[in-house]
Amino acid sequence: MLKANQDYLKLPGSYLFSTVAKKQREYQEANPDRKVIRLSIGDVTQPIAPAIIKALHEAVDEMGTEEGFHGYAPDLGYEFLRNAVAENDYKARGCEVSPDEVFISDGAKGDCGNIQEIFDKDCRIAVCDPVYPVYVDTNVMAGRTGVYDEKSGVWSDVIYMPCTAENGFTPELPGQKPDIIYLCFPNNPTGASITKESLQKWVDYANENGAVIIYDAAYEAYISEAGLPHSIYECEGARNCAIEIHSFSKNAGFTGLRLGYTVIPRELKAGDTALHALWARRHGTKYNGAPYIVQKAGLAVYSDEGKAQLKEQIAYYMKNASDIREGLKAMGYEVYGGVNAPYIWLKTPGNLSSWDFFDRLLENAGVVGTPGSGFGPSGEHYFRLTAFGSRENTAEALKRIKEM
Amino acid sequence: MLKANQDYLKLPGSYLFSTVAKKQREYQEANPDRKVIRLSIGDVTQPIAPAIIKALHEAVDEMGTEEGFHGYAPDLGYEFLRNAVAENDYKARGCEVSPDEVFISDGAKGDCGNIQEIFDKDCRIAVCDPVYPVYVDTNVMAGRTGVYDEKSGVWSDVIYMPCTAENGFTPELPGQKPDIIYLCFPNNPTGASITKESLQKWVDYANENGAVIIYDAAYEAYISEAGLPHSIYECEGARNCAIEIHSFSKNAGFTGLRLGYTVIPRELKAGDTALHALWARRHGTKYNGAPYIVQKAGLAVYSDEGKAQLKEQIAYYMKNASDIREGLKAMGYEVYGGVNAPYIWLKTPGNLSSWDFFDRLLENAGVVGTPGSGFGPSGEHYFRLTAFGSRENTAEALKRIKEM
Repeated sequence: MLKANQDYLKLPGSYLFSTVAKKQREYQEANPDRKVIRLSIGDVTQPIAPAIIKALHEAVDEMGTEEGFHGYAPDLGYEFLRNAVAENDYKARGCEVSPDEVFISDGAKGDCGNIQEIFDKDCRIAVCDPVYPVYVDTNVMAGRTGVYDEKSGVWSDVIYMPCTAENGFTPELPGQKPDIIYLCFPNNPTGASITKESLQKWVDYANENGAVIIYDAAYEAYISEAGLPHSIYECEGARNCAIEIHSFSKNAGFTGLRLGYTVIPRELKAGDTALHALWARRHGTKYNGAPYIVQKAGLAVYSDEGKAQLKEQIAYYMKNASDIREGLKAMGYEVYGGVNAPYIWLKTPGNLSSWDFFDRLLENAGVVGTPGSGFGPSGEHYFRLTAFGSRENTAEALKRIKEM
Repeated sequence: MLKANQDYLKLPGSYLFSTVAKKQREYQEANPDRKVIRLSIGDVTQPIAPAIIKALHEAVDEMGTEEGFHGYAPDLGYEFLRNAVAENDYKARGCEVSPDEVFISDGAKGDCGNIQEIFDKDCRIAVCDPVYPVYVDTNVMAGRTGVYDEKSGVWSDVIYMPCTAENGFTPELPGQKPDIIYLCFPNNPTGASITKESLQKWVDYANENGAVIIYDAAYEAYISEAGLPHSIYECEGARNCAIEIHSFSKNAGFTGLRLGYTVIPRELKAGDTALHALWARRHGTKYNGAPYIVQKAGLAVYSDEGKAQLKEQIAYYMKNASDIREGLKAMGYEVYGGVNAPYIWLKTPGNLSSWDFFDRLLENAGVVGTPGSGFGPSGEHYFRLTAFGSRENTAEALKRIKEM
């Protein structure tokens, strides 16, 4: 009998950001004269850097000629980009990652969502709480998470690792044994970072317990303090237990260009099975490569010009982060993040619920943020603001919050 | 316990086209002076049309400005493109498809591979034999196909619908009842087309039996004869039983740009579940939209200039198809396809196996094609050539085949 995937139907309500967008739309319709400032979703706003624009134009010109035309890309991505990634993001940091362990894709969201597919349905996942919803939702859709308790917002078969002010927003090692551990540092949504020593503990734990870590490094370019790991492969033994996922969205403004990559070391196994081969099979069967012109744009990210321009772009956003952080502090808010990450995580005043604070901020300041509870139960009474707005909007938002 | 997806491990050997590429590489290394001509995989070779190149440049310029910058695309694709699709590919053909039933994606291969995910694992699939390997392989990876018999190349839980010279390469209605039926017309690999009357029979069958048809229309632009359906929605009742998948790869040379779309009518259901909502959920959770610049390029496909240029491009490839078809016929080959499709499907001479003919063609003519048996058991003793080469290479290939 024709039947829908019943696991899809388990997903409660609509996606967090859809609800946020809906509330924003309703407010805007009711208040047409008030400009809403959106510091909610993690979309960047600054134009693509000139070095990347130049590379795009050049690649487009190539595609219009017989000699320069490029059809299907190689399954794992073009060698020029895989080489640049291995050289700049790994070798230069003393990490051992070879180009053929780098899988170029159309972005980290897809990779984060699809990676669970190469594992057995009975594998148990552990996630930080709060957490980027894609990790959990894609496992729900695969039937891996058990039963949902609407009241607590908790799935019966997911191991939650609370991240709160008490533990500095870095999780403790889990009490129950997971098979797959999702970690993201610098963290979305809390903006927390992790030290190399702490990350090493996770690598050791995974190796001792036969677990795999899926390490989301989408925000590594925002690390400003020395001594913090930019890659999990800076830790000893990580090649035996870790998959790392990278994005070009936040370090280079590619949210609308779509480019990312995933690293799977050759020696990483589940039982006797090399995970590299499984992911290669997925790429070969369900994916057809990132566009040539976008991969050329990715290459420009690693050029001297590109690096210099992107350093400025990140500094621009991090000035916003620091303005929000210091501004809110001066107003008496309890604020976290914003130092090594483009996210500011604040405690709601007067122990307001996250959604109550969302409504108050929208109604009184015309500012949209993201309710912490949308990222998981431990996000309740917290709230996320992003540093990805323009300087003017960020300043105006702070002014309005101060006045409210 | 950490365990790999066991269904992935059921996939036999390597992907068809990888084996073809490997044999080609080995031959080229052994014969460095002989230029190998590749008429195997369905990759196009002509440069992107000027109207599309222009649109790409303009969109790239936009991305470099504060006002023109585009971040994350809307989940279902930009309205401008969904409107153009609904208008040109449907309304103009008298089909009822609204823009919000069009899901823009990064290509038909991904959609063909991912669409099975919205159905229950126990749904039974039916495929033509021979068939585009992605339909079967992605169902294998989802655990939907039972046990593989290596000798016959057949999966125990798949319903095969043989397409041979005897039935004009259009399948009979299946003896067993399927839940999901994959159809592709004009067909890859056989190059066969289907009449509207025959397709209507399939639509009626699906509606009577509660099955869904996944209709792959990737090659519809190559239809040259009047009266053949360009879309399954030309058939009455198709909105209640059919999903249609389109590509920009073959009609507009987008193999290296990546753009496609899938149509799911609002009324299409599996039991009580609207499939439109499930696919929207998949898009929202595991995908982040096709690049803005590529969607703008897609829009240019529907401009007057774009249409005129692409008509010429298709005519170029179809001249190749006709040259191959007539050339081989004159040499005494039994040849099919090549009239409404860019594929030529030939019977191997002397009842040679497909792989034996592959080896003979490579060794004696330095020409690479695709063994029919790679597309399924009924493809044995057949062979596929594509019309996507350059005019010069196509002529040279024919000359060499004649001399061999």
